[in-house]
Amino acid sequence: MVYMNENYLSLQQNYLFSTIQKKVATYQSENPHTSLIKLGIGDVTLPLPASVIHALHQATDDMAVGNTFKGYGPEQGYDFLKESILEYDYQKRGIELEKDEIFISDGAKCDAGNLTELFTKHTSIGIIDPVYPVYLDSNVMCGRAGHFKENTNQYENIHYIPVTAENHFIPTIPEEPIDIIYLCYPNNPTGTVLTKEQLKEWVDYAYHFNSLIIFDSAYEAFITDPEIPHSIYEIENAKHVAIELRSFSKTAGMTGIRCAYTIIPKELQVFTKDKTPYSLNALWKRRQCTKFNGASYLSQRAAQAIYSPEGRLEVAQNIAYYLSNATAIYEALQQSGFQVYGGKNSPYVWIKTPNHMKSWNFFDYLLDNANVVGTPGIGFGNAGEGYFRLTGFGKKSDTDEAIKRITDCFS
Amino acid sequence: MVYMNENYLSLQQNYLFSTIQKKVATYQSENPHTSLIKLGIGDVTLPLPASVIHALHQATDDMAVGNTFKGYGPEQGYDFLKESILEYDYQKRGIELEKDEIFISDGAKCDAGNLTELFTKHTSIGIIDPVYPVYLDSNVMCGRAGHFKENTNQYENIHYIPVTAENHFIPTIPEEPIDIIYLCYPNNPTGTVLTKEQLKEWVDYAYHFNSLIIFDSAYEAFITDPEIPHSIYEIENAKHVAIELRSFSKTAGMTGIRCAYTIIPKELQVFTKDKTPYSLNALWKRRQCTKFNGASYLSQRAAQAIYSPEGRLEVAQNIAYYLSNATAIYEALQQSGFQVYGGKNSPYVWIKTPNHMKSWNFFDYLLDNANVVGTPGIGFGNAGEGYFRLTGFGKKSDTDEAIKRITDCFS
Repeated sequence: MVYMNENYLSLQQNYLFSTIQKKVATYQSENPHTSLIKLGIGDVTLPLPASVIHALHQATDDMAVGNTFKGYGPEQGYDFLKESILEYDYQKRGIELEKDEIFISDGAKCDAGNLTELFTKHTSIGIIDPVYPVYLDSNVMCGRAGHFKENTNQYENIHYIPVTAENHFIPTIPEEPIDIIYLCYPNNPTGTVLTKEQLKEWVDYAYHFNSLIIFDSAYEAFITDPEIPHSIYEIENAKHVAIELRSFSKTAGMTGIRCAYTIIPKELQVFTKDKTPYSLNALWKRRQCTKFNGASYLSQRAAQAIYSPEGRLEVAQNIAYYLSNATAIYEALQQSGFQVYGGKNSPYVWIKTPNHMKSWNFFDYLLDNANVVGTPGIGFGNAGEGYFRLTGFGKKSDTDEAIKRITDCFS
Repeated sequence: MVYMNENYLSLQQNYLFSTIQKKVATYQSENPHTSLIKLGIGDVTLPLPASVIHALHQATDDMAVGNTFKGYGPEQGYDFLKESILEYDYQKRGIELEKDEIFISDGAKCDAGNLTELFTKHTSIGIIDPVYPVYLDSNVMCGRAGHFKENTNQYENIHYIPVTAENHFIPTIPEEPIDIIYLCYPNNPTGTVLTKEQLKEWVDYAYHFNSLIIFDSAYEAFITDPEIPHSIYEIENAKHVAIELRSFSKTAGMTGIRCAYTIIPKELQVFTKDKTPYSLNALWKRRQCTKFNGASYLSQRAAQAIYSPEGRLEVAQNIAYYLSNATAIYEALQQSGFQVYGGKNSPYVWIKTPNHMKSWNFFDYLLDNANVVGTPGIGFGNAGEGYFRLTGFGKKSDTDEAIKRITDCFS
């Protein structure tokens, strides 16, 4: 008889975006002639840049001929891609890394989820609240979160670090030691950022307590303010305390192509219970060699193309397009009297719901009255209650129309 | 302080193929002018079929234009691919499945590894010995294998089911209940198969004891004997007891493209500790929704293409090419006096080493004297000691040359 991993029973609801999808499907079947505008899920809408398309055609041709055909690639990724990453994402910012500190994968979501396997069950976890659900759920699934407490709507073993308008979305450094802390900046869902000084406080905290920071910078390409760090390794000592997750999904609109990477510096150590240090890089490598077979050759060639001169220009244009959407949402809603956040170094705009509406009520209200789909803040955690996320990832025409519909509702 | 998952310390060696890669690299650096022939790792060498190349170009063009562009796909895969799978892989064999029993992924290795998360730590595991290392290692990594015992060269909590020439490579049905049993047929590494009657005994066993069979049929396309089952669902009651893993890597030479699928019938149940049943399909779906973001759109279009009339023909030609290599190895070595197995419904030929040589000694001997790289049987388990695996996945010219070199050594 096969017994299930009962930690899954502690998961509180279906994955947020599946729930939204269901609500939307129901609405659409009941209102088949209504044209909905979806600014909910963080998915891109612009087609792939010409340089990426060109690289994909070329890589396909490589696969058609015996002497350029590629079978299994190196499990940790091709050097051609790692070399571009090193040069453009790191060396140009003064950061030196080695190729074997880069692990190419098929998605930052996979990496974020799978990293949870490397640690003991009793590792303590800190998350910012509101948070990208994968950090929390993947820890629930391996039993690290403990029981869910209905009265607090929280897991007993998770350290929640709330960010709201009251603390200007700056998470307070905990006083107690927490083993692993997830930081996502530019932040999903709030669209807010941390300055170098603010991020340095986290690195110092982790260095002091021997903590590990899992730094998700999937949205770094959206940073416009030159003072905001793109990589946690811009901060002194960060190589001793931080893993960095990056993705080509948001940077280059490659959500349908699947390519991402994770940096695990060799300085990073975890410990056996008798406190013998062990390389985290080696541990992840072993995990990936056993349970992963590398990202597609085509996806890696596509990713490489965004570092070419044309690719960099095209990607910058796409990012500017999405950012201009985010800015338009931000400014229009602010003018309509909403309190709004994010939207400047991020594709996400975080909106305080009017009249203390609950997040899901606001979701239903916008769906019914503006025919606009967003993401309820409460779906990201308690501190997201009373907030709502819209993204700049839609088409410009849809975004403008959505803005008009929403502001008309509240004028 | 972050404590590591110490189960990783129980892993016995680097992943087999990495070890081989290192030995080969050392040999090549010491003998730079020697031309090695690699018939070790099970990687394909023929370029992708024309229909797959065509589909990849077309899918790339889809990504270049706004109205055909694809962002995130459905986490469990596109319907266009699932429909082809249902029709050609199952309905044509009289098996009815639903689309939501198919989970498209980026690799059967990932699925085999990640499935281990769904069960309690104390689930008992049965593996055939010799075995594809991922089944064992992924269970070691989650603590299910227990301690490694040096005196037996085995893990204390694993049920090893040996297959050797002595039992004609037919695994004996255990008398005791085992929770999860991994079966891979056509078998990797031995190249042997089970008849319907032999497989039925396993299904009956699992049905009787409420066990789960994880049936890996990555090599089903190589079956030539019409009596050998391609899917475990050809056996009555199998939907109640078996998951099936399939891969486009070996079927269609897509190792560098990354596409596979896993079937989890809705009949399959696991249990909470108070014996409440829970759908295994729902459990895996939740896992994949949280920690996976779908296979690449391009990879799924490539996979779909192999079901077209041209695709089926091209794939059949490639399979025939590899099979003819395997047959050539089989026959030549048999004529040279070797005891050989497999090679008829499988790309793998399993060779009894001559003169009771140990597997690694034979590996070194062939590397040094024939400049041929194979895989030592002991790398797959104790019962593989004294055996050696060669694959039909090489080029025909290389395979013929390797046969000549090996038979010359032993003439």
